[in-house]
Parts: sequence; structure tokens; C-alpha cells
Amino acid sequence: MAARRIVPARVRSFDAHGEVSAGPDRLAGEEPLEIRLDGEQFTVTMRTPGDDFELVAGLLLSEAVITRISHVVKMDYRSGVDQDGHRTYNVVDVRLAPDAPGPRRGAQRQVFTSSSCGVCGTPSLDSVLKPSAYPVALPHPLVSAARVVSLPDELRRHQRVFDATGGVHAAALFPASGGDALVAREDVGRHNAVDKVIGWALQRELLPLHDVLLQVSARASFELVGKAAMAGIPVLSAVSAPSALAVSHGRERGVTVIGFNRRGTCNVYTHPGRISSPEA
Amino acid sequence: MAARRIVPARVRSFDAHGEVSAGPDRLAGEEPLEIRLDGEQFTVTMRTPGDDFELVAGLLLSEAVITRISHVVKMDYRSGVDQDGHRTYNVVDVRLAPDAPGPRRGAQRQVFTSSSCGVCGTPSLDSVLKPSAYPVALPHPLVSAARVVSLPDELRRHQRVFDATGGVHAAALFPASGGDALVAREDVGRHNAVDKVIGWALQRELLPLHDVLLQVSARASFELVGKAAMAGIPVLSAVSAPSALAVSHGRERGVTVIGFNRRGTCNVYTHPGRISSPEA
Repeated sequence: MAARRIVPARVRSFDAHGEVSAGPDRLAGEEPLEIRLDGEQFTVTMRTPGDDFELVAGLLLSEAVITRISHVVKMDYRSGVDQDGHRTYNVVDVRLAPDAPGPRRGAQRQVFTSSSCGVCGTPSLDSVLKPSAYPVALPHPLVSAARVVSLPDELRRHQRVFDATGGVHAAALFPASGGDALVAREDVGRHNAVDKVIGWALQRELLPLHDVLLQVSARASFELVGKAAMAGIPVLSAVSAPSALAVSHGRERGVTVIGFNRRGTCNVYTHPGRISSPEA
Repeated sequence: MAARRIVPARVRSFDAHGEVSAGPDRLAGEEPLEIRLDGEQFTVTMRTPGDDFELVAGLLLSEAVITRISHVVKMDYRSGVDQDGHRTYNVVDVRLAPDAPGPRRGAQRQVFTSSSCGVCGTPSLDSVLKPSAYPVALPHPLVSAARVVSLPDELRRHQRVFDATGGVHAAALFPASGGDALVAREDVGRHNAVDKVIGWALQRELLPLHDVLLQVSARASFELVGKAAMAGIPVLSAVSAPSALAVSHGRERGVTVIGFNRRGTCNVYTHPGRISSPEA
């Protein structure tokens, strides 16, 4: 799978005066992943290959199809075979336990989602706002401002595909109290990177993630706030801006939304009471 | 609509030592836009309000529902009314001409798409690769390297919502031969910004855009290559990286894919023959 995360390419470089060099380059892999639930197509997402079972687990949690990993009886790559009979590793078959909450009838997404899309294929805005099995409650945890502003550099140390390609997003889970990232993942789609880290935690039965901070390399869109809320994550921190909807969604769901976390400062848009100052 | 592009917010800023300031801030608007075709729901996209008819026109071209603006008999906001009877401006009703190519039966997306998603809701990868009514042919046009590397700064001058919020993507169409942008648009979704500029051109019957360059503020994902191909645009230039799939898609569809166009240099991944050097 590693060879499909980073794909070799040829590139020619130009400046205003014309071609200056030509040579090998490396690009981030982007391939479709089809997810089937009990034999039925559920969705297709464009993702960077790797950590696919984590991605599927996290996505199914986001969609309220499962709330714990025991709702998945089995995951494998059995169905994906190309015309020459070779396994593609681009189809994940999921067998759900009878007590899995979803998918509700008619909620099948049966859609194609791009690498940058996290809520594609659901029929309305209301259906995106699913109740969380792990509601975020105030005030836990109290996080120091110093901890929050250290997260982007911590995340950056894990961005190996980015180092090679410059073309992927990243997400990581950090203990609120301090210490290294629990897990970090990269993907061309920021929502996939988030699904992967939450799926990792789900597989280890670590939910709810009430004492965990989610740091992302990109902007805070409203679907990332929703993913945090579904896993019980109280703090979402982004390097770039949040949208207005991300902020209103964070306010409603109890998630502290932090943006512009870069170069030692950050902006807190919702539930700032979780951020402690040293003198406090 | 202007008040919904840029939304006021309160923000508290922290550094490692605690809170340093609190005050007003501005965020990029992000709201759902539902598109109905002849009364049937087609798709919902998360977008920054404004230029909605351009967005719808460009999206319908991308989806091969229309290939020219005369395929749209009428567009209006008639259906979107909230519970108090106020128009929401979040539903666009489209009446299609009888000779409009689509949507094919069963191709309805009927889905919710995020602000960062451009191909959501189509049932398979194959259905994303629609034949273009305006195929891109080599070698037109021949573009100077100096022109290409000037585009990001030219685009930057038009990014007014970004100046206010730091939270939106941008896209612009430039004549290959030189001169100002024909049109520039901003949106929380990069695919929406591209749909808006292509929709603008479609409304003015400027397709195929064979002598036009498309510059985007973000990375070059494969769906943006597809949108360029559907409008006959021969050159897609991005400030950030392309994915491996964007490059293979550009190679197949005849689109010159340029990435890392910043600080006076750029990388050309496909069809470099369109880029001329002054000495050539």
C-alpha cells in the first residue's frame, strides 16, 4: 500500500524565463474506496490508500452506522478485483452486527465522494446533524493555552507524506493533559484524515474521547466539527480558518472550535472556558 | 447577500501564556444551496452565498446536465421559504429546456455535498468522467511561462473575502494571451469557486474556453481537472500540489496541469508543450 500513498511522477519546472529543470517528483496518491455494508454499496470516497479499515470505522461512526467497534463483525477487501483478477484493495466489505444502529433504511449514500468531502451523499442538512452517542459536556477538559498552541508543530512532525508530496492534509489526536500524539494520519481529504484517527481510536475502544484534542492541518469546516462531536472530542483545533457554520455548529454541540492555530497563537471561537491561562 | 458572505463573530486570542485579546472577527459564510431541476431535488452543496446562479450553471455543465446556457429556461429562488415565510435564497429552481442533455434518469444526485466537495453524489467513478462537449485539443494555446507564473499574484488581488476572513478559496479565468482576469470568484469550496467562474462564462456564451487559463488558490484535485475539461479549458494552474489522480486525469483529457505555482516558479505535470519559453 505504501507505494500507492506516494506516487512517482515526472515534472518540469518553469520560471518567468522558461524551463529551469525537469526531473522526478512525488505526488500524493488519490484513489476511490468503495464501502459496502452487508453486500450493499454504501458510499465511495476518494482517499489516499492506507489505513483503510480505520477510515471505514471512523466514517461509519460519523454516519451513526456504528457507535462501537463491536458493531462491525468483519471488514475485508474481498470484493475488489480488477479485470485481470488482481485484488484492487479499493473495496472494503463490512459485515455489521445485528445490533448496529444503522444504516437506517433510505440513508444509504450510494454516492461518490471526493477527497475533500466529508458529508457527501446524505439527503439533507438535517441528516448530517446526527445525535452523538458520546455527547460533549462542559467543562471537561481544561487545557492550557500553551498546550493548544504547541499542537500544530507536534502534528507537523508526523506529516511524512506531506514532506514528500506537499499535497496532503493531516489530523492527529493528542491527550489534553500533555504528551505525544496518540495517532496521526495523512490523506488528500481532510475528512478522511479525521476519520482515520477517530477510526483508530474506535478500534481500540477508546471512545468517548473526552480528554483528547483533535488537531487538523487545514481549515475547520462544519463537517469536521460534526465528526469531533460524534466521537465525544471536546476541542477541534485547525491551522486555518473556521467557517461561520463550523462555529455555530461547534457552539450548539459543545465543541471548542479553534482556528488560525499557527506561530504560537490561536483564535478560540466557541466554548473558550476550556482553555486555561497559567495564572488562572 | 453580501452580509452572508462575511459573517461577524466574536473571538478570543491566546498565546502560550494565556488570553491576549478578545474582540470582533469575520468568518466566511457557509450555507447549504439546494438545486432543483424541474421541481425534483438534484443536489445540495455547501457554499458561500452569492453568485448562486453562476454556481448552478457551472455545476450543471460539470455534471453534463447542460452544455450551453440556452438549456436553462429559467432559474429563480422561488421555493426556498423558511417557517416564517421569508425567502431563504438557499434553493435554486431550474427549469430545463426539453433539449437539455440531462440529467439522465437515475443520475440524480439527491445528496448533500460539503463546501470542499466537487463530485459528491454521483454513483461511481465512471460517471464522474463524463465526455466533454468542448474537448481540449493540443496544442492551443501557447502560453508564456512568464504569464503562468504571474497568475497567482493576479488572482490574489481579487480575493476580497479572503482578505476579510482568511477562510475561502478562489478561482479566476485569465486570457491566455495576457491581460486582467475575465472573472474571479471566492467560496469556502474550491469546486464552487470554479463552478462560479465557469458558470459566469457559460452565461455569456463564451464556451469553449480554449484560450483561457484557470487559476485556483488551492490544490489541484482530480475533480477540478474534470471541470476544466468540461468547459474546454486547456490549462489548470494551482498554488498547491496536484494529486496523482489529477495528473493522470489531466494527461488523459488533454489538460495541462500546473501545481506549486508560487513565488515565481511552477511545476508542470502534463502537456508541457503548451508552455513557451521566451527564447523558443
